Amino acid sequence: MRSTMQNVPLLTSRIIEYAGRVYPGSEVVTWGADGPRRTSFADIANDCRRLANALRVLGVEGDQRVGTFMWNNAEHLELYLGVPASGAVLHTINIRLFPQQMVYVVNHAEDRVIFVDNSLAQPFSALLAHTPLVKHVVVNGPVPPEVRQALAGDGEREVHDYRELLDAQSDTFDWPVLDENDGALMCYTSGTTGNPKGVVYSHRSNLLHATFCAGAGALSLSQSARALAIVPLFHANSWGLAYASMMSGASVIMPDRFLQPEPLVKMISSEKVTCGGAVPTIMTGVLEYLDAHPEADVSSMKDVIVGGSACPPALMHAFHERHGVTLLHGWGMTETSPLGTVAIPPVGLDEEEHWRYRHTQGRLALHVEARLVGADGSEQPWDGTSVGEVEVRGPWITASYYRDDDAASLEKFDDGWLRTGDIGSLTPDGYLTISDRAKDVIKSGGEWISSIDLENALMGHPKVHEASVVGVPDDKWGERPLAVVVGVPDDVPGVEELREFLLTKVARWQVPERWAFVTEVPKTSVGKFDKKVLRAQYAEGALPVESPKAS
Amino acid sequence: MRSTMQNVPLLTSRIIEYAGRVYPGSEVVTWGADGPRRTSFADIANDCRRLANALRVLGVEGDQRVGTFMWNNAEHLELYLGVPASGAVLHTINIRLFPQQMVYVVNHAEDRVIFVDNSLAQPFSALLAHTPLVKHVVVNGPVPPEVRQALAGDGEREVHDYRELLDAQSDTFDWPVLDENDGALMCYTSGTTGNPKGVVYSHRSNLLHATFCAGAGALSLSQSARALAIVPLFHANSWGLAYASMMSGASVIMPDRFLQPEPLVKMISSEKVTCGGAVPTIMTGVLEYLDAHPEADVSSMKDVIVGGSACPPALMHAFHERHGVTLLHGWGMTETSPLGTVAIPPVGLDEEEHWRYRHTQGRLALHVEARLVGADGSEQPWDGTSVGEVEVRGPWITASYYRDDDAASLEKFDDGWLRTGDIGSLTPDGYLTISDRAKDVIKSGGEWISSIDLENALMGHPKVHEASVVGVPDDKWGERPLAVVVGVPDDVPGVEELREFLLTKVARWQVPERWAFVTEVPKTSVGKFDKKVLRAQYAEGALPVESPKAS
Repeated sequence: MRSTMQNVPLLTSRIIEYAGRVYPGSEVVTWGADGPRRTSFADIANDCRRLANALRVLGVEGDQRVGTFMWNNAEHLELYLGVPASGAVLHTINIRLFPQQMVYVVNHAEDRVIFVDNSLAQPFSALLAHTPLVKHVVVNGPVPPEVRQALAGDGEREVHDYRELLDAQSDTFDWPVLDENDGALMCYTSGTTGNPKGVVYSHRSNLLHATFCAGAGALSLSQSARALAIVPLFHANSWGLAYASMMSGASVIMPDRFLQPEPLVKMISSEKVTCGGAVPTIMTGVLEYLDAHPEADVSSMKDVIVGGSACPPALMHAFHERHGVTLLHGWGMTETSPLGTVAIPPVGLDEEEHWRYRHTQGRLALHVEARLVGADGSEQPWDGTSVGEVEVRGPWITASYYRDDDAASLEKFDDGWLRTGDIGSLTPDGYLTISDRAKDVIKSGGEWISSIDLENALMGHPKVHEASVVGVPDDKWGERPLAVVVGVPDDVPGVEELREFLLTKVARWQVPERWAFVTEVPKTSVGKFDKKVLRAQYAEGALPVESPKAS
Repeated sequence: MRSTMQNVPLLTSRIIEYAGRVYPGSEVVTWGADGPRRTSFADIANDCRRLANALRVLGVEGDQRVGTFMWNNAEHLELYLGVPASGAVLHTINIRLFPQQMVYVVNHAEDRVIFVDNSLAQPFSALLAHTPLVKHVVVNGPVPPEVRQALAGDGEREVHDYRELLDAQSDTFDWPVLDENDGALMCYTSGTTGNPKGVVYSHRSNLLHATFCAGAGALSLSQSARALAIVPLFHANSWGLAYASMMSGASVIMPDRFLQPEPLVKMISSEKVTCGGAVPTIMTGVLEYLDAHPEADVSSMKDVIVGGSACPPALMHAFHERHGVTLLHGWGMTETSPLGTVAIPPVGLDEEEHWRYRHTQGRLALHVEARLVGADGSEQPWDGTSVGEVEVRGPWITASYYRDDDAASLEKFDDGWLRTGDIGSLTPDGYLTISDRAKDVIKSGGEWISSIDLENALMGHPKVHEASVVGVPDDKWGERPLAVVVGVPDDVPGVEELREFLLTKVARWQVPERWAFVTEVPKTSVGKFDKKVLRAQYAEGALPVESPKAS
């Protein structure tokens, strides 16, 4: 039997109209070389309607994709809201992709109109020779004539100024009534192999996800909050911060391109930031700056969601003890909108227990179901120790990639669940701990060995500078761990010394038989151990492997 | 273009599984003559699954309606969750309806299985002779043999004990994947005329509404909250409290039948209640008790949503000043799930402004759109003064009544909007103030006069004990106000005296020409002025009307 409730879809346009009406005085603060610019939510809403009219003038109809190549600023936020509300799909281009990846995503998404910050216009113009579908470039801020010329090309593209374009339009617009499952915003993930894969969020998924981000299970946003959006709008849906703030009346501080510790600390202290979202490396820089500048006042700041990679416990403790800031572990990925968990601990625990929960990746959101698929393909219990690949399901979890039926892409989905590629465990009360990536975990005789656990254990040895562990083929066990070690200068440890040390840290059967001592572990462009390269070097016999008889 | 998100419905079963897993130690506290009973969320979840199995045993399949005739207690909460999650529709019967209304709703909903508290079993058994579809009665708690006999009738019905029924079942159940727009829970409204009308909430509407109830725009629930659910589970979806608490991990204190001020205060102090929901009359009783018992400690209590009828400002101020409790005005009705607004004021106001917002019915929820339809049928501006009938739209607003196509019922719906029957104004920032009921407002020459404003103004006169104002037919203006006044004993005021007084309070054209001085205003069963009776008495010439020449 159907309910008697109205059939009203969850749409992005509602956020615009609500934020503009109910929180007209909340503000978006955009950092700039000449100090902050302030845009009220009322002005944001007016600009969103002007933008929607402007998109019609540029010929954007239906579900066309509209690209952005921008930092975090008020204009990017207007696009974040106004483009989906108008019925088009916002495609936020990650400005840190390789040029050939950028070209790929613009062509794959079929962007015809792209909005670009003036500070990024020159590098962006270099792509345009390879993106023939792009017909309009809208620049946010002034650019010199030669850059404008480069953007226009040989008359292939029209170039517009964002402010002029909007100012020519009315600030009223009749928002279309869309299907809430229609595409609203798309992000491409950049894996280490193959082309980037597109994830298309819906109006529904974004509103539900942002509601979680705003709630007591995450940032507890309200009109008195002031959120620093360090996480880029082009990165994984900006972790929901953009929409969550507008829905809650929380003011947003946008760093634009000023992502160095000094301006970030200045934003926190002068704008009385209360919360935010950032990757651990940024927070490490902020901590170092704060420690060196004890006069900086960040006492307004309470909570920062930290995700993207695991947050070192030492960083959490340092912020807690020295600056009264709670770093909340969050876990997720582009495919999960991204928040799947946030480490709000249970109440009423003693300090040790409290921190045990804080160190996990966090508590599952109400709408995110999880299961652990073990080495033998069976579902693993939630006992805090059994591990498996984490699979998730829910209204803001990806079911497929956009126009992509590669076999490797299809393998990411398992009968309605997303295979996250993360290996982890779950406590009985739903807190997730990630121990490895599925592609890095070592599958040894039907059991899994966490490469990260071995690395952390090894790096705890005083003579080890760096250690990376990868799985290599083994006739008997399928795979066994190979430890690649960089010793400290002049005191490189021996294999037996390290094996003895490991025996005090991990189970005997996990201790590697194969060891290689090198002067440097190869790294990816973002500084992570490049395990693909290590495995290739091993296969080619390019590593000096020692294999003492296993004791 | 469709998004690439998973198609996962919002279902009640998710609340059960989440609350049981993630908040196993949160508790439902049920008040009793022998002290409180405690049921953990883990046990609630187990019982919900046993209940679902038991429903199958009783032959409940598909979307059958399952009735409850119960106070607020742990078992009623289990039914609140378990019945909808199993795919059936929970019909909470208002135990305060007239017997013939109860019979009507049970037959109209086609309840075949009804759950009843033992303390209500005897009065309930009297209805059963008139509800031939009912085949199973499940009693919560022991009853004497003669009551059991009355429930069973002449073998027409099977009678079961709740605990025995559940204990015979497994605590695992494979919840069905339902359509989120399917019926989950139904409530009947009891208007003053005609039969009660059924509203059927969906899984979707309940989850979205409860999320609002739990959020910073309402009660800010979290695992550290302890909510006192004074508002009955059978009344307007219990204002979302039941689901919101379970979703948030907030413990719930259930008063069962102990709704008098003394036990309520005892619950607040001994259970460290932090928030709740209640009608103003209950809170008036609690205030009187607290003022008479200064030793009572209610310092744990922060916020109580007060709705159902307007909360007297004096009550709000008394709780604020004397007990540190914030009474949050909420507005809504059965047809709106019910929360449409909650009076969380904007931040950063001075005290006078703060209270001006607190006295309104509150701020619209994100997902509740509103418009004001004025006397001439045109939409009125949100300027804080223009009034109109409030119409609302949103995913938790009713679109129709269940199996009811009476012309009067259909008139409640206006092109996709619900006509609320309330007359009010909206501030530019979305705060609603209700000034009258549409059926009581006086339509005078294309303008509206609030009967409540005139009544409040008149009752401010020292010689007026009571005053009720109704619209009566007028040849020139269509309708004009008739003031019906009860003077203070031995000093009944005169018409000219009251007219002069009113001229200092309201616009000249609103001052009544017709006056009747009586010894008592007729009242409804719940103590409100019975304006239908007044209008009938006027029409029959039964009121001593004075009509001095209008000055």
